[in-house]
Amino acid sequence: MPKKAVARRAFDRALSKELEALIRDAKGRAAKIEEPSELWGLESWLTKRRREIDRRYDYRYSVLPLVFAHLLRDGRLTEDDLHGLGQGKLDLIRRASAL
Amino acid sequence: MPKKAVARRAFDRALSKELEALIRDAKGRAAKIEEPSELWGLESWLTKRRREIDRRYDYRYSVLPLVFAHLLRDGRLTEDDLHGLGQGKLDLIRRASAL
Repeated sequence: MPKKAVARRAFDRALSKELEALIRDAKGRAAKIEEPSELWGLESWLTKRRREIDRRYDYRYSVLPLVFAHLLRDGRLTEDDLHGLGQGKLDLIRRASAL
Repeated sequence: MPKKAVARRAFDRALSKELEALIRDAKGRAAKIEEPSELWGLESWLTKRRREIDRRYDYRYSVLPLVFAHLLRDGRLTEDDLHGLGQGKLDLIRRASAL
C-alpha cells in the first residue's frame, strides 16, 4: 500500500474510533441529565471536545508525524496501524511519541 | 399574593416547564444519534436553544409584560397563572399577546 494510503487509513481509523467513543460518551451523559445546568454542561463539553478533535486531527503533511505521535502515545493508534510508512517517518513518530 | 410574587411565580413556572421540555427533547435527540454530524447538530441546537431562552426569559420589569405576552401566546402560560397582577398590566399583556 502506498505510504500516503497507509497514513490516510491510520488517521481515518483513529478519528473514527475517537468519534464513536465520543458518541457513546455523549449518549451516556445525556441519559443521566436531570437539571438544566447539566444540559448546559453537556453543551459546553461538546464544544470543548469538538475543538480538541479539530485541533488534534490535523491532516497537513507537515504536522502529520506529530499527530501520529500523539495518537500513538494515547493508545489511539498502534505501530501496526503505521506499518508501511517510511522507516525515517516511523522513527520520528516513535521518538516524538516518547517525549 | 403581592403582584411581584405573582409575576415571579408565573415566570419561574413557565421557565421551569420550558427547561423540562427541553431536557426531554435533548435526551430524545441524543438517544437517536448515530453519526458524528448528528452529535455536532445536537451541540449547535443546544447553543441556539440556550440563546433563545436567555433572550426570552428576561425578568426586567420594563419588558416583563411583553415576556408574559409571548408566553401566553405560545401557551407557556395561561391567564390563570397571571391572576393577581394589576388590571392594567393584564390588559396590556392580553393586547400584546394578540398582536
